[in-house]
Amino acid sequence: MTERVVVIGGSAGGMATASQARRLRGPDDLRIVAFERGNYTSYSACGIPYWVGGLVQNADDLIARDPATFRDEFAIDVRTHHEVTAIDLNRREVVARDLRGGGEHREPFDTLVYATGAVPRVPDWARGGPEGIFGVQTLDDGAALLAWLDAEPTPRRAVVAGGGYIGVEMAEALVRRGLDVTLVERRDEPMSTVDPDMGALVRAALCELGIDVRSGREIHGLVASDGRVRAVRTDASEIPADVVVLGLGVRPNNALARTAGLPLGSTGGVLVDPRMRVQGLDGVWAAGDCVETRHRLTGQPVHIPLGTYANKQGRVAGINIGGGYLTFPGVLGTAVTKVCELEVGRTGLLEREARQAGYDYAVTRVESHNQAGYLPDAAPMTVKLLAERRTGLLLGAQIVGRSHAAKRIDALAVALWNEMTVEEMAGLDLGYAPPYSPVWDPVLIAARKAADAVRAAGC
Amino acid sequence: MTERVVVIGGSAGGMATASQARRLRGPDDLRIVAFERGNYTSYSACGIPYWVGGLVQNADDLIARDPATFRDEFAIDVRTHHEVTAIDLNRREVVARDLRGGGEHREPFDTLVYATGAVPRVPDWARGGPEGIFGVQTLDDGAALLAWLDAEPTPRRAVVAGGGYIGVEMAEALVRRGLDVTLVERRDEPMSTVDPDMGALVRAALCELGIDVRSGREIHGLVASDGRVRAVRTDASEIPADVVVLGLGVRPNNALARTAGLPLGSTGGVLVDPRMRVQGLDGVWAAGDCVETRHRLTGQPVHIPLGTYANKQGRVAGINIGGGYLTFPGVLGTAVTKVCELEVGRTGLLEREARQAGYDYAVTRVESHNQAGYLPDAAPMTVKLLAERRTGLLLGAQIVGRSHAAKRIDALAVALWNEMTVEEMAGLDLGYAPPYSPVWDPVLIAARKAADAVRAAGC
Repeated sequence: MTERVVVIGGSAGGMATASQARRLRGPDDLRIVAFERGNYTSYSACGIPYWVGGLVQNADDLIARDPATFRDEFAIDVRTHHEVTAIDLNRREVVARDLRGGGEHREPFDTLVYATGAVPRVPDWARGGPEGIFGVQTLDDGAALLAWLDAEPTPRRAVVAGGGYIGVEMAEALVRRGLDVTLVERRDEPMSTVDPDMGALVRAALCELGIDVRSGREIHGLVASDGRVRAVRTDASEIPADVVVLGLGVRPNNALARTAGLPLGSTGGVLVDPRMRVQGLDGVWAAGDCVETRHRLTGQPVHIPLGTYANKQGRVAGINIGGGYLTFPGVLGTAVTKVCELEVGRTGLLEREARQAGYDYAVTRVESHNQAGYLPDAAPMTVKLLAERRTGLLLGAQIVGRSHAAKRIDALAVALWNEMTVEEMAGLDLGYAPPYSPVWDPVLIAARKAADAVRAAGC
Repeated sequence: MTERVVVIGGSAGGMATASQARRLRGPDDLRIVAFERGNYTSYSACGIPYWVGGLVQNADDLIARDPATFRDEFAIDVRTHHEVTAIDLNRREVVARDLRGGGEHREPFDTLVYATGAVPRVPDWARGGPEGIFGVQTLDDGAALLAWLDAEPTPRRAVVAGGGYIGVEMAEALVRRGLDVTLVERRDEPMSTVDPDMGALVRAALCELGIDVRSGREIHGLVASDGRVRAVRTDASEIPADVVVLGLGVRPNNALARTAGLPLGSTGGVLVDPRMRVQGLDGVWAAGDCVETRHRLTGQPVHIPLGTYANKQGRVAGINIGGGYLTFPGVLGTAVTKVCELEVGRTGLLEREARQAGYDYAVTRVESHNQAGYLPDAAPMTVKLLAERRTGLLLGAQIVGRSHAAKRIDALAVALWNEMTVEEMAGLDLGYAPPYSPVWDPVLIAARKAADAVRAAGC
């Protein structure tokens, strides 16, 4: 008998699950229906800033696979503009509403994949207010923002709320479009996904781009007239704004799960077992930004919404649904970004995270170069390591620099994954040639100095 | 009583040892004398192609620390233009000859550091021949080559013998100087430090630069007149040459060691224990291109002359001489290079090395991109992995691509160091953002496909 799979959510987590399952089981064996509320499937949300900034010409370029491709090549029945409004675990069916007016219907399932992603954090001041306020979570959001930017009267002044990845990338994109941009960040430094001392380097790069960075400030309200936003209000001042972009982070889209009785973790994400099965529920799986996952280092639950995790979790869920066996190994919080020419990478724990987790650690920060110092293009690179006192275990790493800086974090992420000590890391056999590093790679210099710091702190 | 340390060789291995020992023990405790045959200490031999190519203006830029710095800041007595001609282990003294005519003297030691580096392989046809033939092993070599290139009659046509790192980098440097360059490589493809299928990609880049690549060819002789080289002869043809650069690799500089009775390994390198002490000889240490080391994966002895190893071994030897304790953990043969815009990286075993070591392995080769495919600068990247059949252990990796390709090898080197399987690697938490990779990093795609290949081959 054909097994019926229903997927809720047509973005990375859901469609990676569906296509992976399909690779293992044919359409006669496995019937797959996927419901997507929006217009698009399987796209790069991370690409939205590049679309807005004009580096990418149109939304289609960001789409890895459209519904027709899923239908024709994967025999997956994707229904866009369909919102699932309820899950009935007892009757094993979902209620799906056609958002273009086609009413509701019930779709039975043997296997359910919950992949609703995340929803942006929308502060009170941004709710139900005037026009000109945009999230950048979905391609539909991006399209709405672009339409606003292109419409008369042409917006000239932008405020970006939040200085995380999305905020910083959007600020740069809006500068590229010629807008005057102010970035408002609640913490002391932008890019709070790195420590403040590293964030200060990012702030400098943002200022060089001409972005007005207001950190340590929070937006409390709006000024509007004629139904359009005119300014935002912080505790310190009023900042004119013809457009406001929200980059305040996201939370798991768990409303449907909560109502249906799927177990939720402390982060609000759906609780899954290592195979991505929803805890305690046979035949119910989840993947992507809607799930809670485990930090490999601390063992603690975390919610870190990244496309790369959604894809990996989808692969795991799909292989298991397909009859195979695979577990998701947890995350380290590795992330990279680029601000103009500045590259930023991190993995593992920041200082505040390490403290919160109860670690006692030594901090090492080294300034080195991305090339041999004698080459004309050599540029500075800062590497910061946190290592546990006494054991010397690496706890976290951050890198800020120019070309060839950020992806150096990968070597550190693999070291962290394997629970290496900084002393052992100092002996690692990393690649060296003058166009890529001094003879001691900045990562190795940092490891060496961290080993010294651990010895000094270890008594 | 002051311990007397004599260092033979003023380049990376020797001076890293000396300066590390000095950090731990002051001049009253440890008297350090270093003999260097040439004019320079502690320089980047890897930088010579960039000096010859004009990216670096003068030799001084390549010098990390000159003899005056060692004397003034490290209290290390460096004697350049001094060649050590004999080691007397019984009397514990070396014989040093002043090459500028000052005769010989005997220098006693309590502790000896053998760090004579490597000597280039010079084929018979290049010995005692006409002028115009150069190695590029030392700064003195580089200076001699530059003097020849700048003298009348101005050389116009260059032949580079050997298509390894040095050969390829020198070929590019000579093109930058405006010479017509032919690269002659004995094997089927240049860059034999990667597999031939990857070397073919390097060949294409060399040809784009206008370099005439003659592979599968060996130089057998020279044509000369008036004491100057005019052409080289291969089995196929005669290639005009006003200058010939040797890039045929190096071997350990072990003549002095052999005469003195230091133990040599099968590779010709001095045998050391994990602390870099010469095997069986108390108070005698060795570091750098003159030693034999251990491949971490195969456990076999190897001789891989790289500046990064010399520096690491020097750190280990120096810490041990200084009264500390540290071992050298062996090598993986990680290396990176750049040919014009093409980046090349490798770690672990090539196919021929894996076969020789007796491994049965699955090969995976994937073509991906260095950025999200929708970004305008996205460029192709090829990743090749070797994984052991049945166990799935990573055995080796090679990468060829454009910007941000080569140093991705570091993450693979750390995975190899930690004996990861390709299946576990597919779950690694590497950094993702559109300017750095597709949502599945090429390294992860390769790991995923390698895991599939291992499963398929494992039956």
